[in-house]
Amino acid sequence: MSCFRTVAVVGSGAVGCYYGGMLARAGCDVRFLMRSDLAAVRERGLTIHTRGETVRLARVRTHATTAEIGPCDLVMIALKATANAALDEAIPPLLHERTALLTVQNGLGNEEYLAQRWGAERVVGGLCFVCLNRTAPGVIEHLDHGTISIGEFVGAPKSRTRAIVEAFGRAGIEARAVENLVTERWRKLLWNIPFNGLAIAAGGATVADVLADDGLRASARELMGEALDAARRLGHEIPDSFADFQIERSHSMGPYRPSSLIDWQLGRPVEVEAIWGEPLRQGLAAGAAMPRLELLYRLLRRLAMR
Amino acid sequence: MSCFRTVAVVGSGAVGCYYGGMLARAGCDVRFLMRSDLAAVRERGLTIHTRGETVRLARVRTHATTAEIGPCDLVMIALKATANAALDEAIPPLLHERTALLTVQNGLGNEEYLAQRWGAERVVGGLCFVCLNRTAPGVIEHLDHGTISIGEFVGAPKSRTRAIVEAFGRAGIEARAVENLVTERWRKLLWNIPFNGLAIAAGGATVADVLADDGLRASARELMGEALDAARRLGHEIPDSFADFQIERSHSMGPYRPSSLIDWQLGRPVEVEAIWGEPLRQGLAAGAAMPRLELLYRLLRRLAMR
Repeated sequence: MSCFRTVAVVGSGAVGCYYGGMLARAGCDVRFLMRSDLAAVRERGLTIHTRGETVRLARVRTHATTAEIGPCDLVMIALKATANAALDEAIPPLLHERTALLTVQNGLGNEEYLAQRWGAERVVGGLCFVCLNRTAPGVIEHLDHGTISIGEFVGAPKSRTRAIVEAFGRAGIEARAVENLVTERWRKLLWNIPFNGLAIAAGGATVADVLADDGLRASARELMGEALDAARRLGHEIPDSFADFQIERSHSMGPYRPSSLIDWQLGRPVEVEAIWGEPLRQGLAAGAAMPRLELLYRLLRRLAMR
Repeated sequence: MSCFRTVAVVGSGAVGCYYGGMLARAGCDVRFLMRSDLAAVRERGLTIHTRGETVRLARVRTHATTAEIGPCDLVMIALKATANAALDEAIPPLLHERTALLTVQNGLGNEEYLAQRWGAERVVGGLCFVCLNRTAPGVIEHLDHGTISIGEFVGAPKSRTRAIVEAFGRAGIEARAVENLVTERWRKLLWNIPFNGLAIAAGGATVADVLADDGLRASARELMGEALDAARRLGHEIPDSFADFQIERSHSMGPYRPSSLIDWQLGRPVEVEAIWGEPLRQGLAAGAAMPRLELLYRLLRRLAMR
């Protein structure tokens, strides 16, 4: 991993354990910050069921505090965006002069959160396209996909961006460097805003439910149109055909429950600000009219309060 | 009751029993079509707790079919709008040449339903401003208000309109004739569309909850604005100040649960088409832009399906 000898994983849920575990298996020195799963993983290690194979990592470096972990070359942040306040204490012990902060969190605003506190030059973002499930403490089910797109918060890919991409590649994860991270985030939001949002607001609708209901399907496309207009006003070049393609590809998903719906149904925090609030605010500031997203966001904020 | 000697009540829930019961107490010949409450009311009569007084009607004329009731001078229709299909069989036995059909149902489309089947000239509409609760079979709790506004479906009030108003007045109910029934319906919808709708879509929000949440309060006002624009395009003169007044007066309601929310929470049918669907369709047809109402309607249609 050339310039990254030491990797800290902050937020050891399914995403953190999967990507961190795969890097550890490939020989990286990965240190996991763990809370609820700490004792179980110390005792039994990490298990990743992936593509018919079972990866067992008997000895994983787990820590209860980042002070114990100490400065690392790369910090992968895989917390829920709703828990970002915990970073204010967790990050500083992990920093040396050139530590890179890689957020693989959802939506908008996470790079900004890191940049404001620890400097924009440290910040790298990753978009994960992966279906994971944490079935027990330290046990991860990798269901599908796994690609990660990595880009700099500021500017085009650098040598460190490529080093991260290569490290993931060596760990058996399909990774690529992207020229414009924020454009990629918007492209992903074009799907997440309507489908994750309507799933909750309609009381528990799968992708197939939304597509089978003429009204909800029309609303999904309209919400996507609002997000597309906002993204363009913010300088991101995304063609109309991409939105149509996003609807089209959804038809193959069947009764898929978007991750936010699962969070909501299980009573976990929903990333309302990262997925709906921040895109709305940025779009409105750029002069976009987003009446549907605005109503959806306000409903979700309330629904997620329970 | 001059020209109305016989009154049939179709839909003997809280509204039908209250208004019908009060007319019966004043000496009108009122005949109730009853299903689930028939046996109980035959045995124990009707009881209305109103303004500290208990009205007991020991002998009420109850019937299991409208064929048994026969032709009447006035038919008061107090069914849920979602049950209108039942009228196709229930109404014909009640008609003589001059029978008037008074719908006291919510929202838009009920007068049209009656007019299309039995002639527009028969149709009269009533808007009830009343808080009622059916606490047991044949037992009605009258909590607050009680005003009824009565107008012709076609044109200005006639002598029969005034006769109905007078009959209600003699029964101790504050009643008034309105020049333009449909305008009054829109004025009521200006409140029902946002507050009943957001109450459900936000997962069970009282009026106080909506007003206490900056986002939902703003959405309530915006939805009201869309409805106001639609109403004006349809020729109804309602000033902006009326919308502001509707928000203002809501502050005194406290943790009031709109009737549609109660229906939804109890698993009863919600009048989605009458309150949201029909106003949306009429507004769109008149050229109004109603992106918020459209999304809300689609969500409610799905949420009400359970």
